[in-house]
Parts: sequence; C-alpha cells; structure tokens
Amino acid sequence: MPKRTLKRFFEPRSVAVIGASATAGRPGRVVIENMRANGYDGDIYPVNPRGGRLLGLKVVKAIDELPRGIDLAIVILPAQATPQAVRDCAARKIGSIVLVAGGFAEVDHAGEHLQAELARAADETGVRVLGPNTAGHISTPANFTSSFFPLGEIPRGGISYVAQTGNFTGAMMKHIMSAENYGVARCIGLGNTIDIDETDVFEFLATDKHTKAIFFYLESLRRPQRFIEIAKRVTSEKPVILLKGGATPEGAKAAQSHTASMASDDRILDGALNQAGVVRIDEFSHLFLAAKGVAPMPVPAGNRVGFVSPSGAFIVHINDLCRQRLSLNFPDLKSETMERLKEISPPFIRLSNPVDIFPSATVHGMEFAYREAMEAVLKDPNVDAIVSIMILTRELGMPALDFIPKLAKKYRRKPIYISFSGDQACNEEAKAFLEPRGVPTFPLIEDAFKALDVLVRARKSLKK
Amino acid sequence: MPKRTLKRFFEPRSVAVIGASATAGRPGRVVIENMRANGYDGDIYPVNPRGGRLLGLKVVKAIDELPRGIDLAIVILPAQATPQAVRDCAARKIGSIVLVAGGFAEVDHAGEHLQAELARAADETGVRVLGPNTAGHISTPANFTSSFFPLGEIPRGGISYVAQTGNFTGAMMKHIMSAENYGVARCIGLGNTIDIDETDVFEFLATDKHTKAIFFYLESLRRPQRFIEIAKRVTSEKPVILLKGGATPEGAKAAQSHTASMASDDRILDGALNQAGVVRIDEFSHLFLAAKGVAPMPVPAGNRVGFVSPSGAFIVHINDLCRQRLSLNFPDLKSETMERLKEISPPFIRLSNPVDIFPSATVHGMEFAYREAMEAVLKDPNVDAIVSIMILTRELGMPALDFIPKLAKKYRRKPIYISFSGDQACNEEAKAFLEPRGVPTFPLIEDAFKALDVLVRARKSLKK
Repeated sequence: MPKRTLKRFFEPRSVAVIGASATAGRPGRVVIENMRANGYDGDIYPVNPRGGRLLGLKVVKAIDELPRGIDLAIVILPAQATPQAVRDCAARKIGSIVLVAGGFAEVDHAGEHLQAELARAADETGVRVLGPNTAGHISTPANFTSSFFPLGEIPRGGISYVAQTGNFTGAMMKHIMSAENYGVARCIGLGNTIDIDETDVFEFLATDKHTKAIFFYLESLRRPQRFIEIAKRVTSEKPVILLKGGATPEGAKAAQSHTASMASDDRILDGALNQAGVVRIDEFSHLFLAAKGVAPMPVPAGNRVGFVSPSGAFIVHINDLCRQRLSLNFPDLKSETMERLKEISPPFIRLSNPVDIFPSATVHGMEFAYREAMEAVLKDPNVDAIVSIMILTRELGMPALDFIPKLAKKYRRKPIYISFSGDQACNEEAKAFLEPRGVPTFPLIEDAFKALDVLVRARKSLKK
Repeated sequence: MPKRTLKRFFEPRSVAVIGASATAGRPGRVVIENMRANGYDGDIYPVNPRGGRLLGLKVVKAIDELPRGIDLAIVILPAQATPQAVRDCAARKIGSIVLVAGGFAEVDHAGEHLQAELARAADETGVRVLGPNTAGHISTPANFTSSFFPLGEIPRGGISYVAQTGNFTGAMMKHIMSAENYGVARCIGLGNTIDIDETDVFEFLATDKHTKAIFFYLESLRRPQRFIEIAKRVTSEKPVILLKGGATPEGAKAAQSHTASMASDDRILDGALNQAGVVRIDEFSHLFLAAKGVAPMPVPAGNRVGFVSPSGAFIVHINDLCRQRLSLNFPDLKSETMERLKEISPPFIRLSNPVDIFPSATVHGMEFAYREAMEAVLKDPNVDAIVSIMILTRELGMPALDFIPKLAKKYRRKPIYISFSGDQACNEEAKAFLEPRGVPTFPLIEDAFKALDVLVRARKSLKK
C-alpha cells in the first residue's frame, strides 16, 4: 500500500496540539502563537488534561475526546509518552503527526529502544510521522507552522529548505527573517526520520507549485537511489541545491554523533548527484546566499556575466576567483554595446567587459554612469546576467537607485546582483531599498559571484 | 648612493599641498581637511597662484616661495605640470613627494611619455616619489594622511596595508571605518610606482614598531628577489599576508590593463613566497577578515581550535570545511576539561571538542553554559584558540556578554572569535559590544575559521 502523501502536513485544515501549554515561552504555547502570527485559519485543538481555555481556544482534555479525522497532530510530550500518543492519534483517525520531543536514538540506548517502539507504533497504525526530535516545519502557502521557536510572521516566498537539523525552522529562520528580504515556502527539520525522510519531502516539493528552488542540508541519504531518481526529474524543473554534511572523514564522524548518520562513500554519491543535476555547495552560508540570489531573480540562461566595477583591482581579483573556483566568465560585448560604453566614457577611455565604470562615474556622476552602462550591458545578447559593485558614501552623495529595479523589470530574464564597497550605513540603506524591490545585494563582493555561480550550475539541467 | 628612507613620508614635520583649492570637495581642499580631521600638527603650506587664505592657512603663490626643506610635498596638479613641479620641489630641498594626478602610463602613449619624463625628473633630482596615480597614503602614528578621499578621523591600530590600488586609502578605508572596529597604522596606494614600490614600503614597515601585521594587495612584484629577502626576515616578526591579483591568466590579463603589471610565473613566485613565510590568501574580503582577527588578538600558538557550537550541524559542517580547505583541527581535550564540561551538562550528555553547547544552554541558560564551557576549553593546554557561535534572539533574551572580554583578558595568549546565528539586530548589538572590547565577531560562521586559518598559517614562520 503506498503511503499517504505529505499534503496534510503542508496544507492541514485542522490541527491538534497535544501537550498544549498555558505557560509563556513553553513550546506547547509558542507553537499556537506561531500559527496565529502566520494567520493560520484552520481549526486548532489544544490538548491538555487540565482542560480550560488557551489563547481563546477550548482545551480538549485527552486525545480520545478530539473530533475524528483531524488532519495533523503536533505532539509535544516527553519521549516516553509518544508511542502511546501515536496510537491514540491513529485511533482518532489522525493520519499525520509531527513529533517534537527529543530524547531518542540521538541520546542513548534507552532512547534507541524508545525510538524503535515509536517506529513500531507508526508502522502498525500507518500514520505518517515527521520526527521525532524535529524542530517542526513551516508551510507559508497554508499560513502554517509547527515550529515552537518564537518566530512571528514568516515571510512568504519560493524557497524551500529541507534540513537534517532543526535550525531552519528555528534560529536560522530568524536569521533569514531579520537579515534578508526573501521568503520561504516549505521548511522542514527532518529530525530522526523514523518515517518521513528527505526523499519523501523531495517528492512532495517536486510538484509543489509554491516551491521555486529546493535547498537541502543533509548528513545522510536514507534512500540514495530513489533520491537520485527524483532529482533527475526535478532538476529539469527547478534548482536543487545541496550541502552535504559529513563529506570528509572528520565531518562524517561528527555527523554520526549529530544525527547518527552513517558515512557513505561520498565520492560515489557525488558523481551520481552531479549527474542528476543536483548542485552541491560547500558552505553553510551559501544556503542563504544562493537563496537570496534565486528568490527574486530568474536563473541565468548561461554563465556569461557582465560586470560593472568601480575598481580595476576588483576586476583583476574577480577574474582570478572565477577562473580558480567558479564557472562564470566575462564575454566580449557586441560592437553596439562597446559603442554605447564609449559614448558615456571620457575621451580616450576604452571600456570592455568587465566595465571599469570609475572614469565615467567621475565625469558623469554615479547614477548616469551605472544606469547607462548597466542598460547597455543588459541589452547585449552575449550577456546572461550582470553584477555591479557600487561605492556608496555620504560624502560622494547617495545616487538615486530606482533605476536598478526598473532595469530588473525591463530585462526580466537576466539577473541583476549588486555588491558594495564604501560606507556601511549607505550599503544598508541601498539594501533596504533594493531588496524589497526584488534586487538582491551582497555585502562581500565575492559573494555576488558565488551566488550567481550556484545558479549557473543549476541552469545546466533546467529545461527552460 | 642609497636612497633616502620613507621616514619623511610617514612622519612629516611639514607638508606643502601643491595645487591647494578653496573649492569644497576638490582634492586640493579635502586633503587638508583630512589632515586636520586626523589632528596633524605639523606645518601645512597650501600652494596656489591665487594666494589668499585657505582653511585659516596662508596660501603660498608658488613652489619657489615655499620655505626650504619642507619634509613632504603633495602635488595635486594636472599630469602635464608634474615633471616641472618635481624639479621645483627639489630646488626647494623638498625630498619626498606624493604625486596624486592620474593620466600617465595607465591611460595612453602620451601618458607613457609623460611618465618617462616624470621618472627622469625624479631620478635626476634624487627626490623620492610615491605615485603618480596614487590615492595617497595614511600614517596614523603621525596623525597624517595625503588621501584626498573624504575620510574624517581614521581609527588608529596596528594593521598596515600596501596596495596596488587606491582603494585602501579611499572607499575601502571608508568601509573599514564604518563596518569594522579595528584601526590602521600605515596605508599606501602605490600608484604607477615610478620610484617607491612595494619593496621599499615593505622595508619601512619591517622595522616599523606601529605595524603589527602587513597586508598586501599586489598585481606584480617589481623586485621579487629583494621582496622575498625582506620577507624572510619580517615574517619571523609579524604576519605578512598577500593577495596577489593576476594569479590566473584571466586575472593577469586584467591586471595588465589595470596597472600595466606584467604576468610573472605565478607558481614559481608562489613557492618562493611560501618559503619566505608570506601567507597568500585568495579573496579580497579576507584582507579585512584576517585583519579584524589579528588586530585585537594574539596570533594563535598553533592550529588546535576549541569550538563551542550551538548546533550539531555546524560542527559537522565546520569539520568538513577545516578538512577540505583550512589547516585547523579540533584536538581532544584533557580529562580535567572533559570533567568540567560534564559538570555543566545535563546528565547523560557527554561533551567533547567541538563542544555542542545546546543541551547545557537549554538547562543552565546561555550565559552560564558559554562562560563555563569557554573557560574550561581556554584553560586546556591542548587548545590554541577558541571559536564560539552564539544564537542570539530577543525572544530567548540577550545574555550578558561581558564575560567574553574578561576571558580574553585572562587568557590573553589565546584568540577568541565569536560568530552568530539568529536575529541580525542582536548580532549587531553583540558586535557593537564585543569589538570595541577587543573581541572580533564574524557574521558568517565560516569566516571566523577562515580568519583564524590565515593567522595559523602566519604562525609557522613567527619566532615568538
């Protein structure tokens, strides 16, 4: 019998919170506050033997007093109580359960036994279980989350994260919410994966129209063959980006104590993933960098980058970086483009790609120079994407930046990334202006290119 | 006859500004404003044929009306006028000149001729010249700068930059001043190096007691043998860190149009630099990252890092990163340290290095857990340095952080680096608290380790 899909996890019409709590800050309360903050409008049934009312909701005293057929239960009980809770939920025809508690195989032998018992309960009843030891999940298209980390309203967007760590529905979501301007669709902390694993979630996200790009942090693949089969299909539709923890012997050893992940031969896996179009990255921070790059922008059609730089040193350095570690290059420009660049430059200056904009900016001002150069380069059929580095300082005067979102709209098939040198406060002002208007910015100059590189690599397998 | 040292460039008792200007924003005025903002208390002689007064100073009408023997002249005149200005300065016994103008070999053939004429003037008169086409230099121990980029007061510190780009006395200094909390000693934009080159400056900085670490951005070495000779000596005294632009064929080609640098065989150079103890880095941003790491902290005695992490995923990932790209490792801890970690942990949790602090922080609170774990690890003779990642959010409450500078003071031979996950505003608050108290922070978790790695590599050649 094929297992139930994950639709009810991500689109629940009704939810029971088993182990609801009246105490401020406790997971059993925060989880409900989080749902409210995100505008969840399904029915919420708090369950606690004390009964009474909680956040305006009637508290049900026991699972067997719940109405039958609730879509999803979030179980926030001590580990020992969870196997029975699963059976009780199943008896009330609740088919999907999030198990928040830790204290299982990740801790000790007693925990291993308990986890086995829990797995039996899930198996015998046929319910689908996320966890245990998960920090919950997020589904912004359903205004829903089972996270118990105090989050408030989570920004909506097309990025989905699947992680073998609770961080993406906790501290890292907070980081994204406070430091970045992109939003998420579905985020899942996998926990100990007694049932639902990365491949199940991958399968759901494969056809999820709300998910524009899928980011994985995994320390192991439970079903590598199936994962790769799905990848072959999905990577022609949307970027699939993976950071694999435990890629080295040291990392693999650490992964074993983190999520009891067994080391597989990383090189064999790497070849298969690569062939299936999965883009492997090697820094945690790139899970955010690449996401902020792809969230508001198209995936570039190829690796030909137009680069507008205020400094010859940056041009030299980025050339080195691209040659040494990235798959980007700087194509020659069409003669029309060269002509236009000549028109906006002081006499005797001959611009090419990368465009050293400094002479033109000195003569004509930043706004004119960047606007005209960027438009000329964006228009060029030899160019797939553009990166501009701007030097912003109070003393030189902040240029009006609204031409950049306008260019992004006009040349909507070519990503525009902005980076900075100069005054930090000005950079932050520019970020606060540009990012809500769909233009990603990168504090470190290399990062704009690193983010673009991830998407260029994703392009190879995309059909359109 | 040996050439004059650079002492008068870096410690001038009197300065002439040739081409001083009354107009706001013009280099000939900004350069004087910059000196004033930095508290320069030598004599300043503005020179302009119009005479009159400028910023309270009497304007001298011509170079030959200047008093004899002024230490340094800053010449801000059109390119064509500079050879004569050099001869006129020499006639007034001014032996050191900064030539700000561009328009020489970096532009066209006419510029090449002019540059040759200028070089002749310098040669024949024996004056020392920085430039032309330089953005000036900075010397905070003398409260002095010849930069014409509006900077205001430049923070003092032990970092010196020597760059084949004007950026470090312009936009990048502004970046350091606004985004970071470390200060600089001497910074030099080399320009077209008709006389003073990177090796001359290196020689000066070698024995400069104000310079704790030397950072180079170079696209070519004019005298590689001499440079390497000096390096052999200096790298036993202080870290010497180099980003070499043009390390790849593409970069080298770009360098040729940037600073007319000729490609040398980078691999041969690389071996010699490495043997001489110069630490080569490969990202522009690391010129700031490593500087902020070394500025307030000692160079670690070795590569054995204690790592206090709030997440198992970070431990896995950083293990991979260190193994794949860095030369750091995570040593076993002494049994006393393990005992102490056990005492501060919940029962059944067995901590080792890296220390997963999450369980202890959950039970005892962030402040207690981090303080006790960090102190236990710092005390351990197996550990040379420590990195802690903290998850800060308003909802979890900001811990008091003053224990961190206290630990830094107590264990002053072991660097402490802090990184973050969580709420951006909290991270910035922590940075604003910690960095002025001598503890560097890194927004991206990998960066703390990358910065430490640069210094571990510098350690190898250091005598003490």
